[in-house]
Amino acid sequence: MSIAYAGERGAFAELAAREYFKGKQRLAATADFADVFKAVIKKSATYGIVPIENTLAGSIHQNYDLLLEHPCFIVGEICLKVAHFLLANKGVRRADIKRIYSHPQVFPQCRNFFKRYPKLEVVSIPNTALAVKFVKDHKFTDAAAIASMQAGIDFNMQFLARNIEDNKHNMTRFLVISRTSRPLKAGRGAPEKTSIVFATKDLPGALFRCLAVFALRDINLFKIESRPVHGKGFKYLFYLDFEGNAEKQPQRNAIAHLRELTTFYRCLGSYPVGRIADPHYAVR
Amino acid sequence: MSIAYAGERGAFAELAAREYFKGKQRLAATADFADVFKAVIKKSATYGIVPIENTLAGSIHQNYDLLLEHPCFIVGEICLKVAHFLLANKGVRRADIKRIYSHPQVFPQCRNFFKRYPKLEVVSIPNTALAVKFVKDHKFTDAAAIASMQAGIDFNMQFLARNIEDNKHNMTRFLVISRTSRPLKAGRGAPEKTSIVFATKDLPGALFRCLAVFALRDINLFKIESRPVHGKGFKYLFYLDFEGNAEKQPQRNAIAHLRELTTFYRCLGSYPVGRIADPHYAVR
Repeated sequence: MSIAYAGERGAFAELAAREYFKGKQRLAATADFADVFKAVIKKSATYGIVPIENTLAGSIHQNYDLLLEHPCFIVGEICLKVAHFLLANKGVRRADIKRIYSHPQVFPQCRNFFKRYPKLEVVSIPNTALAVKFVKDHKFTDAAAIASMQAGIDFNMQFLARNIEDNKHNMTRFLVISRTSRPLKAGRGAPEKTSIVFATKDLPGALFRCLAVFALRDINLFKIESRPVHGKGFKYLFYLDFEGNAEKQPQRNAIAHLRELTTFYRCLGSYPVGRIADPHYAVR
Repeated sequence: MSIAYAGERGAFAELAAREYFKGKQRLAATADFADVFKAVIKKSATYGIVPIENTLAGSIHQNYDLLLEHPCFIVGEICLKVAHFLLANKGVRRADIKRIYSHPQVFPQCRNFFKRYPKLEVVSIPNTALAVKFVKDHKFTDAAAIASMQAGIDFNMQFLARNIEDNKHNMTRFLVISRTSRPLKAGRGAPEKTSIVFATKDLPGALFRCLAVFALRDINLFKIESRPVHGKGFKYLFYLDFEGNAEKQPQRNAIAHLRELTTFYRCLGSYPVGRIADPHYAVR
């Protein structure tokens, strides 16, 4: 069994995979999120793990789009507590730093840090652990990366600052994806949730009617996200998370009702509600 | 009268401001979105203009957060058609380019371009026109910027590729913000819309009940966006756009009803629905 994630050793997705699977699975790093989906579809990985939202920076839209573009299912989730560290090469001091490399979602999570150092230039790298590798490989003496403590340990970096995230309740929610909709052992027994995508018919109160199919059956909603349909101006697709399993009642009836009101519908998967995990760091 | 926007001459926000105001107003460039809000609050600008969503890349979350953090109102909107150009210094050829500077929202709008050139490194700059200025000021011969045609004209750059956006219906919606809620002349006579933010009480079907206050009064919804409340884990604030003016009926009653169901409510403004504008380029 192998798990694909985007980035490098020490990436938050790798920490999330280790917490979720807790076993001896082979973890396989890929270049980016699209490659995680490709690895799962092409069977080079059994599962993939991708971040879907952060409590401070919001949703990772690209992964919502990728979920829709690929024939795969969400089979699990986990919320990982996120702490950011300023990492540089050995011997570099904080006053030497002119440029910061990290994932673009990280910068808005560390606004207070950047307010204190307004002259810092920021450079986006597709992944936090890749940013550390980049700073290391180039032997930069005037740049640092923002990444996990694990990345700092793995690349043997100098810790210039710890916990520079604005908010100590910073969490990222990760989804586990699979070619099949079969749920995983990991979350067995936990309450379930279902993620769907739909586009409403052009009716008055269209979205309200769609949410009514759940409210009328006492099915709680967890999250709603609207994304513009590509090429259709400001027409929206809705991503909805609700409680329960799409194969059970009353969810089954709610979905049948929903399909009367939509021009497009897809179930992304039913899966156990994820726990909140503190990352365990490993010395490797 | 002066209008604050983020970036440099040739920024999409400047094009939007020119289309919206169509007059001799002084346009004042600021460093970033937060400074646009500051300029309006501190009265150094009469109005501000900020992007709020793009049809391909989705919402600009930072501006949703800034709207909530500042005591200001939305008084107008305009949708600007967006075309992206690859701009380099004179004499630089496309084969020389190793790095691309632009706003992070621009990269996902040009995915097909980056698929053709997968080795290009991307660097985030807070604004497209600033990215052009950066490439120009550093006299880079191995880097280019992605920005508007206007930025290419203003900085006298070489056009290496035009219309590299994936989708020809690419549009960005801009909001005009003000210290007072008084609507602007510019959109007079157009149908109105209202933007609000709220947090639901912890009730079963809470969001459904909140949307019911509009559906029961035949008030159409335009857009719903959920944003995590900072520091509260995955609890959400909802940003909602609906048709009509908050001071008129039945919207007034709907809002009174909504306030029975919410723990937090704020009206961000009622304003004329914006037109879709093709940018007019200026030779200056």
